[in-house]
Amino acid sequence: MSGAGERWGEHHRLGPGREFDLVRTMLGRWGDLARGVGDDAAVLDVPAGERLVVSTDASIEDVHFRRGWLSPEEIGWRATTSALSDLAAMAARPLGLVVALAVPDAWRHDVPTLADGIGAAARAGGASIVGGDLTRGRELGITVTVFGSAVTPVGRDGARDGDGVWVTGRLGGPLRALRALLAGAAPGVADRERFARPRARIAEARWLAERGTRALVDVSDGLAADLGHVAAASGVRIVVEGARVPRVPGASLADALASGEEYELALALPANVDEEALAREFAAAYGIALTRVGRVSAPGDSALREAEPRVAVVGDDGDTRVDLPPGHDHFSG
Amino acid sequence: MSGAGERWGEHHRLGPGREFDLVRTMLGRWGDLARGVGDDAAVLDVPAGERLVVSTDASIEDVHFRRGWLSPEEIGWRATTSALSDLAAMAARPLGLVVALAVPDAWRHDVPTLADGIGAAARAGGASIVGGDLTRGRELGITVTVFGSAVTPVGRDGARDGDGVWVTGRLGGPLRALRALLAGAAPGVADRERFARPRARIAEARWLAERGTRALVDVSDGLAADLGHVAAASGVRIVVEGARVPRVPGASLADALASGEEYELALALPANVDEEALAREFAAAYGIALTRVGRVSAPGDSALREAEPRVAVVGDDGDTRVDLPPGHDHFSG
Repeated sequence: MSGAGERWGEHHRLGPGREFDLVRTMLGRWGDLARGVGDDAAVLDVPAGERLVVSTDASIEDVHFRRGWLSPEEIGWRATTSALSDLAAMAARPLGLVVALAVPDAWRHDVPTLADGIGAAARAGGASIVGGDLTRGRELGITVTVFGSAVTPVGRDGARDGDGVWVTGRLGGPLRALRALLAGAAPGVADRERFARPRARIAEARWLAERGTRALVDVSDGLAADLGHVAAASGVRIVVEGARVPRVPGASLADALASGEEYELALALPANVDEEALAREFAAAYGIALTRVGRVSAPGDSALREAEPRVAVVGDDGDTRVDLPPGHDHFSG
Repeated sequence: MSGAGERWGEHHRLGPGREFDLVRTMLGRWGDLARGVGDDAAVLDVPAGERLVVSTDASIEDVHFRRGWLSPEEIGWRATTSALSDLAAMAARPLGLVVALAVPDAWRHDVPTLADGIGAAARAGGASIVGGDLTRGRELGITVTVFGSAVTPVGRDGARDGDGVWVTGRLGGPLRALRALLAGAAPGVADRERFARPRARIAEARWLAERGTRALVDVSDGLAADLGHVAAASGVRIVVEGARVPRVPGASLADALASGEEYELALALPANVDEEALAREFAAAYGIALTRVGRVSAPGDSALREAEPRVAVVGDDGDTRVDLPPGHDHFSG
C-alpha cells in the first residue's frame, strides 16, 4: 500500500513477510559483502583527497537480455559488471553499490541466484553492497548504482594530437554470441563466456592511469562508437588501423568495431611511451592484451577531410576506409 | 542491440535518434540543474570532513502509483522526493542524484513533464542531477539514487531512555487520499496535495540535528511502523500518547499512525529541551508543527511488559492501547 517496496537499507531487521524473506535471503547470500544496511541510507567514507565518482545502469528483461539466454546468476553478474565498468572507465576505485530490483512473480525463485551473480561481480570489483530496494515489477529490472573514488578521475576529453589509441583484450565475442542467440543457435563457448561473463577492468584502468592515460572509456557501445565519444569529447579525430584491432577467433574487423558490452577499455596515451614494453608489462600483470590500434589526429589534419567522421578506420592497404557501424537506438529498433 | 539504453552520463552529445532526443529534452528541461554529464560517470566532491550518505529508491507503475492518480509531473516529483527524504532521515545535505528511467511507449510523450517533476524536486532539495539511464520498459519505472553528506549522519539507533519522541507536520493526509483513490473517489484537495506533493524535510532535519537529535527516521511506512524501526535499532520501547499525534483534519488516530509516504520526520531528542520553545522556533523557521508525541521507555520498564510490541500507543484515558497497524508487504497483497 504505502511504502510498497522493501528497501533493505531500511527494513531487513523486520518481518515477517515474503519481501522481508527475499531481502534476508539476499543478505544471507552476500554475507560480509553487504554492509551498512539497517538505516534510511548507507554511510561511506571517500578517502581524503579523492573525488567521488558515481554512475547508474539499468538492465531490463527483453531490453538488455532475454530470459533464455543467460542464467539468473549471469544476469546478476552482467548487470553489476556493466555498472562497475563505468568506474573503470574513469579509473576510479569502487567504494560501494546499491541495487534496485524489480521482480515479477515468475522470477521470485531466481532471486537467490540473481543475488549470487550480483554479489560475485561486486566482490570481483571490490565494491560493498550498501543498500537496495526490492519491489514487484512486470519485468525483471536490475538498476545498479555504483560509487567510487579517484584522486584524478580520467575522463574522455583528454586525447591530444599524436596520442596513441589503445584497447585492452580482444573484441568481437559478445557480438558473435548475440548474433547466434538472435538466430536461435548456440554461441561458441568462448563467445558466450565473453557475453555472459564480462569483466570490469578496474585494476587495469588504474594501472593505465598511473602510466599517463589521458582519455579513457569502456567499450560498451562498440569500439568505433566509443572512440567516437572520446574524439567528440576531446575535439579530435581518431584514425584506427584496422589490421591492428585485436579480435577473438572468428570475428571480422566489422564485428570487432561494432561489438558492444565488451567492457574492455579504450584509451589515449602520449606517443612517447615504449609501446612494446608497455604491452608486455600489461600482459604480464593482467593476462590480457594491450594493443595500440591507432592514433589521435587533431582537427584540420590534412589526412582527414572535414566531411569525414570523427573516427576513421584505415584498412590493410593503408587506404581503404571501412564503413563504421551505426550507433544503436533501441527505441527505434 | 548491445548497449540498449541511453545513459546521459555518456551519450548526450551524440545523436540523432529517438532516445537521444528524449535525453536532450530532459537535459533541456533541467538546464543548470543537470551537471557533470558527458562522461562514463559523474564526478562530485564530498566536503572535507564529511561522510558520504547514499540511498536508492524505485517507483514503479501499478506498484507505487497508478497512472490516473497523479500527473506525470507529480509522479516525477514524488519519486524524487521519496529518495531525497532518505537523506533528510540521516540529516544529510544532498549533493546530487542519478535517475534511471524505464519508459513504455505509452509514456514517451510524458517524459518532458516527468522530467519537470524530477527537476523541481531535485531543485527543492538542493541536489544536482548528475547522471542517468533511459531505457525502454513494459511499465514506467523511476529509480532515483541520491548522494548526500554530513559530518555526523543521524541514524536510528541513538534513542535513549527518557528521550522525547517528536514528529514534524500533521499526519494522515496521504492515507486519506489513497483510500479515496482506491475507492474511485476524489480525495479532498489538502489530502491529495499531501499525497501528490510531499516535501523532503532536508533543512528541517539538519536544524533538528543541530539541536541534539539522537535518532531520526522519515515517516515512509507510517508513524507506528517507523517508530518501530527506531525502537528496534535503538533497543528501546516507545510509548506514544495518542492524543498528541498531530493529524490533518478528518484523520483518525489510526489513520495518522498508519499513513505512509508522509515524508515527515520522527525523532528522539533528550528530555532536557525546552519543549515549548523548540516547537515555537521550529514553526517560525519552517511553517510546520513540531510536536512531542511520546517518550522512549527503556527495555524492562515496568509499564511495558515483555510480550508487548516495541511501540505502544496510549489512548486519551491514559490506559487504552490502540491496535497498531500491521506493516505492509506488497508481494503478499
